[in-house]
Amino acid sequence: MSQQFIHTFLSVDCVVLGFDNEQLNALLVKRDVSVEEAGSLKLPGSLIYDQEDVDDAASRVLFELTGIKKMPLRQFRCFASPNRASRAEDRKWLNQAYQPNINRLITVAYIALCKIDRKHHNISKYSSEWCPLKKIPQMPFDHNEILLASLGEIQKWVEMEPSIIFDLLPQKFTISQLHRLYESIYAKKIDIRNFHKKVAAMPQVVALEEREVGVAHRAARFYKFDKKGYSKLKNNL
Amino acid sequence: MSQQFIHTFLSVDCVVLGFDNEQLNALLVKRDVSVEEAGSLKLPGSLIYDQEDVDDAASRVLFELTGIKKMPLRQFRCFASPNRASRAEDRKWLNQAYQPNINRLITVAYIALCKIDRKHHNISKYSSEWCPLKKIPQMPFDHNEILLASLGEIQKWVEMEPSIIFDLLPQKFTISQLHRLYESIYAKKIDIRNFHKKVAAMPQVVALEEREVGVAHRAARFYKFDKKGYSKLKNNL
Repeated sequence: MSQQFIHTFLSVDCVVLGFDNEQLNALLVKRDVSVEEAGSLKLPGSLIYDQEDVDDAASRVLFELTGIKKMPLRQFRCFASPNRASRAEDRKWLNQAYQPNINRLITVAYIALCKIDRKHHNISKYSSEWCPLKKIPQMPFDHNEILLASLGEIQKWVEMEPSIIFDLLPQKFTISQLHRLYESIYAKKIDIRNFHKKVAAMPQVVALEEREVGVAHRAARFYKFDKKGYSKLKNNL
Repeated sequence: MSQQFIHTFLSVDCVVLGFDNEQLNALLVKRDVSVEEAGSLKLPGSLIYDQEDVDDAASRVLFELTGIKKMPLRQFRCFASPNRASRAEDRKWLNQAYQPNINRLITVAYIALCKIDRKHHNISKYSSEWCPLKKIPQMPFDHNEILLASLGEIQKWVEMEPSIIFDLLPQKFTISQLHRLYESIYAKKIDIRNFHKKVAAMPQVVALEEREVGVAHRAARFYKFDKKGYSKLKNNL
């Protein structure tokens, strides 16, 4: 092992996940420089500036590349494998997009969860797009690995703080939507009858009088997340 | 803001916490170069080498500075404030210990929990020492801030996975020890009678027939953590 201390460039990369009521999607951006050999989609990311902290860089990147402001981003891991930027096509892109001779690149990864509502649907003008998790292409650097690791992180996060799952849902949702979301996050089938029991035991999931309209199947009841009640419940623990 | 991309040095720093049956201690090391103005104790850390991943660097550092091998280290946050290495005494130390002109230094922080048993007690030959959390001195860089942040992280971690608390205790422990450990981790008084009720409801904490010997007060019963039973319990959830 070389005993030189590294002098490295540092970047941030953001895993932004959104639920479109059917499945989980990751927000990907098109590389702004065409490199024939590489896939054109990647996680939103950027090298950080000289006077910038990493958390600020992550917010800046997300705004510049997607137009999304003030989204809570959670730092989750530093990816620093010595080989993560050593593929020829990735080096070529770094040369074109940033500067030559970036010998090593270390990244700090962030996670955000959001609703894909009207506001977040209209991101295509930034060359960003929502890509279903099942259709994620081969991405540059270790971006596929980062995305996979983020899902493991979110599973742990949901176990610790189940209420974050409602960040991904619309204000009013059906049990089917909630069920599909759990299945997406855990990447496995969850028995629907057991799931109904599980939900019935969640005091924070409150049934509304309202039902779906204009659907072919039997109109399902809407539910909401009772944030106030949930906070009160938690504080009494 | 300068729009230069940073070319930075990267380090790792380890928060190693040990419980001495009375209170929580952090493992600190003496700076190997004397700098008059600065405190001489700091978190164990090092710049990372050219071909090294951050996780490997953290294990290396811990072994080199403390003689501790194979301790599970958990990466918890990247600290990257532009000002974290800008104090004159810290810059002077970096010049002497590493190399001149380290303009900016970003660190990835790790946490480890361990028992202070015979093996981990004998670390002073490495210029390391256990320092009670209540007596932590002013440390260089942002090491005080990193230590404080790690405690918040451990609180969340214990809530998610209560069994990790037993990594800090001897095989056989008394309820008083467990109580003092919880008080240390949460940095607050916890009512002892409520605590006894809490412990009685933990199936993984098993009473032994054995009691303390040679103590001035009434000999307390020993307990153990039933790791196998706990895993079984968890897997059935």
